[in-house]
Amino acid sequence: MLFYLEAIWQDGSVYPTVSEPKQDRSRATRDRLLEAAVASLAESGWARTTVATVAARAGVSRGAAQHHFPTRGDLVTAAIRYMSEVRLGELRGTVVAPPAGSNRTRWALDQIVGLYTGTLFSAALHVWTEAAVDAELRAQVVPLERALAREAYRLAVALLEVDAGDPHVRTVVAGTLDLARGLGLANVLSDDTRRRSRILDAWADQLDLVLARPTPKP
Amino acid sequence: MLFYLEAIWQDGSVYPTVSEPKQDRSRATRDRLLEAAVASLAESGWARTTVATVAARAGVSRGAAQHHFPTRGDLVTAAIRYMSEVRLGELRGTVVAPPAGSNRTRWALDQIVGLYTGTLFSAALHVWTEAAVDAELRAQVVPLERALAREAYRLAVALLEVDAGDPHVRTVVAGTLDLARGLGLANVLSDDTRRRSRILDAWADQLDLVLARPTPKP
Repeated sequence: MLFYLEAIWQDGSVYPTVSEPKQDRSRATRDRLLEAAVASLAESGWARTTVATVAARAGVSRGAAQHHFPTRGDLVTAAIRYMSEVRLGELRGTVVAPPAGSNRTRWALDQIVGLYTGTLFSAALHVWTEAAVDAELRAQVVPLERALAREAYRLAVALLEVDAGDPHVRTVVAGTLDLARGLGLANVLSDDTRRRSRILDAWADQLDLVLARPTPKP
Repeated sequence: MLFYLEAIWQDGSVYPTVSEPKQDRSRATRDRLLEAAVASLAESGWARTTVATVAARAGVSRGAAQHHFPTRGDLVTAAIRYMSEVRLGELRGTVVAPPAGSNRTRWALDQIVGLYTGTLFSAALHVWTEAAVDAELRAQVVPLERALAREAYRLAVALLEVDAGDPHVRTVVAGTLDLARGLGLANVLSDDTRRRSRILDAWADQLDLVLARPTPKP
């Protein structure tokens, strides 16, 4: 009650804002766990990423970690969701400021493929692969995967500056995301940067060609 | 020595063919282990696929299994190699007998994508994903992955009936395999058949368009 009154005194609010510092700490702990979970999945894989190992990595007590995330499924799906939001948010920032002088399509492809070639994709791959053989985890992962696929699609439409009202364009953008996912998978065991660059050069030419032509009528 | 003489007597050969029945049994045991390993990986994932669990599944003693495959890495890489050879062999058979009346490109795409949507791809995904965080396994998997990628590429060139002497064509075929891999990954958690069919329809049109035009000059 003392803290509550102090809070009113400090900012004139009638809301119990004094509890915010505790919420901030709790939020910071949560975010640290989520970042540690993604790093652990990418480095060590599913089997060696548990609530306990992630808590240790984040410097958080196991009890506190389990308060936030009762199961490993809760932790890893929240982690992929959180880090994806961060990553998509960064990319949305780039959409409003494309570089001058470069090929728009080729640049957009680099941004899109970047979603599938970093730590986050590696982490997600371990979770998706485990979910393929674990029905309980799959029930948590499928809605997340769908939400992320929708977000990636919207981002690709914005980056490529195409008209998503055209069904043919929608299919071509979706195929671009499938290609990006395949390129991501090819990059998991060894650095595929040079080969990928050639594929994306050809794909950019192809997209310019295909998106410029009128929609084929059935 | 008795068996050796009997062998000469039976087929007139001077080679110790009498040992062949034993080799046949050994080969049959090996193949049964390899088939069981792929099925186990696809159904249960890496953690629950060991030399012991695969031996039990194949109805082979653990000792016999370990005689053939001392480590899990030996077993799973041999399994992916063997089943890929079987699958690629089947597909090579289809190349010489394409169906009459259907769109050649669209049909070829279905064959190619079939490599990335079945049990074998699911099994390989579990091994590749584990190899991403296990350097010893990665050393066994990378040469296998490269060999399979080369085989898949050769098969795609034959199925699509394109001129692999043209560098632009080579890149487009490689990109088609990347797209197929991405479509395979999209199919891991839920049945993606309908969406994939639309993507492949558009991709077939696009390939016909792109492969018909002359190679862009730099």
